[in-house]
Amino acid sequence: MLHGHGDDIFAYPGIKVNFSSNVYNHFDHSPLYAHLAACMPAVANYPEPSSATVERAIAQRLGIDASQVIVTNGAIEAIYLIASTQPRPAKGGGVVEDAPRTASALVVTPTFSEYADACRLAGIAVTAVDQLPSSTPTSLAWLCNPNNPTGTVMPLEPLLHTIDANPQTLFVIDASYSHFTQRPLLPVAEAVARPNVIMLHSMTKRFAVPGLRIGFVTAHQALIGQLRAHHMPWSVNSLAQKAAMFLLEHESHYTLPLQQLLDERQRVAAALAATGIVDVHPSDTHILLCHLHSGTATALKAHLANNHGILIRDAANFQGLTPAHFRIAVQSPPENDQLISAFKALM
Amino acid sequence: MLHGHGDDIFAYPGIKVNFSSNVYNHFDHSPLYAHLAACMPAVANYPEPSSATVERAIAQRLGIDASQVIVTNGAIEAIYLIASTQPRPAKGGGVVEDAPRTASALVVTPTFSEYADACRLAGIAVTAVDQLPSSTPTSLAWLCNPNNPTGTVMPLEPLLHTIDANPQTLFVIDASYSHFTQRPLLPVAEAVARPNVIMLHSMTKRFAVPGLRIGFVTAHQALIGQLRAHHMPWSVNSLAQKAAMFLLEHESHYTLPLQQLLDERQRVAAALAATGIVDVHPSDTHILLCHLHSGTATALKAHLANNHGILIRDAANFQGLTPAHFRIAVQSPPENDQLISAFKALM
Repeated sequence: MLHGHGDDIFAYPGIKVNFSSNVYNHFDHSPLYAHLAACMPAVANYPEPSSATVERAIAQRLGIDASQVIVTNGAIEAIYLIASTQPRPAKGGGVVEDAPRTASALVVTPTFSEYADACRLAGIAVTAVDQLPSSTPTSLAWLCNPNNPTGTVMPLEPLLHTIDANPQTLFVIDASYSHFTQRPLLPVAEAVARPNVIMLHSMTKRFAVPGLRIGFVTAHQALIGQLRAHHMPWSVNSLAQKAAMFLLEHESHYTLPLQQLLDERQRVAAALAATGIVDVHPSDTHILLCHLHSGTATALKAHLANNHGILIRDAANFQGLTPAHFRIAVQSPPENDQLISAFKALM
Repeated sequence: MLHGHGDDIFAYPGIKVNFSSNVYNHFDHSPLYAHLAACMPAVANYPEPSSATVERAIAQRLGIDASQVIVTNGAIEAIYLIASTQPRPAKGGGVVEDAPRTASALVVTPTFSEYADACRLAGIAVTAVDQLPSSTPTSLAWLCNPNNPTGTVMPLEPLLHTIDANPQTLFVIDASYSHFTQRPLLPVAEAVARPNVIMLHSMTKRFAVPGLRIGFVTAHQALIGQLRAHHMPWSVNSLAQKAAMFLLEHESHYTLPLQQLLDERQRVAAALAATGIVDVHPSDTHILLCHLHSGTATALKAHLANNHGILIRDAANFQGLTPAHFRIAVQSPPENDQLISAFKALM
């Protein structure tokens, strides 16, 4: 795994406002907590080996078949699972004869580093590009859409055209942030109809439950079958399975204030830029990638944590970014005001 | 994953006594449940990416260094992780030149099927043997000790001799059932001192919490480092991490009635054999592998579930076993009496 992910709040006990993960922190989880407390005896039995009940519930809600869904231990398990199921070259510099399907991967960067990391660990050669080319020479292409850490969305028509023009490439589209934008995105039903698209989904992001580790994949039945054959049993624990069912059944209680988040994104971006200290990357979501004119994100992060109880994401370890880059996910207006004030104090 | 594991109690709502998993079902988990209910806000933040706090606590208790421990999403994640970190041949029948370290594995059977399954998925050739040979020609050797489903323990001296006589082989010793025998076992401290041993440990089995998914690996620092490099982040969820700390701190409240379990093993084995319906494999633990003289374990399992509310493990899908094999883990004396009565009714 990569070292230095966001939401390292466990290492900062004095934090009052957490902008460092891309999770919206303002749902009232008390009904979920009460439900899980009542489900505790589930701890004493094995979970369903493959979360089949949750898969059926997800499929029903999305209007697809359960054979087109696999539930994973967060989207991250799906990333490692996909990388590990690809044909790969032998390690140790061996020359592979007669192995035309050996995998290679293209990653659109800057993006979540685990796509490239999982590929490299599986022995898959990775090429970083700054935008998806219309002709993809690799067997795999990873795209985070909306993207982390930029918050941008690739326009749908060119994306679909590229997917259909490159049937030799398996496109893995991480849709973890799909609920945080108003831009048109690839519909799940259109993705599962294609033999060369895998979509990743994050209940962490949708429901703000990163501690539980629940994600899922939607794709053509043949692709899901391949992942299922490689999937270890019991990867999602009993409480996470119980939580997933509760969240799906109570989705209407988890309304993201999307318009407010997007309005706040504009307000925060403008206010931070107005300080003259940072540039802010245009974003289609609640995520803002920023670039300090001077100094490092590491120093800024320590300053904000120690003096303001504010946690941001040092983004220096995203491939293609620099020690001056950091990322925030906007939160409620009063919290965003605290962030803006802290920046104004730096002027 | 393999289909048809034990503890499929989720599929049998009327079960009163569960002999089907190798878990001892009689700990009072209410303090754990109360603790987890109080820890619920941990759901709203990411877990530690690598369970470092739990790793330190385990290392301290075992008297080894934290660099010699990696916590996993159950022992099963360790099995898949170990298989995936081995050098492997190219898929698709390719010939690999200049790749002398390509992995091959030996599995002592009958045993937990996931060792072979994880190896095959990673492209590693598997050879099944019915006992560990003194000279191992493979790069990997898997040994469940005490063994599932037989309950037998390999004598320590020959095991150590084989390990030390075969430095080219990495020995993976699944010690998930180590707390369920009085036979001498490989001490963790002796294992971590060797460069070619990995030990797997199961909090599921020790503390009877299969729903949480917490296991760990102990090994030489170099081997742990290799696993850590391939390990996905956040594989153990926040509640499982909290539970692990609680269980380690309250281990003295989780006393296994080992002598009683082993006495019951003898009593149940004798009583079942006396029915004339089954043969019972000698066991060094609470696990009993049985073989029906006529009929199938599938039919017996359905009969016991439907008529007695008793769940057993159909063991037909263990490599090397037959449709007549089933497995039980003895429980409390009154529950074992119910099992014996149900068998007597079959005479």
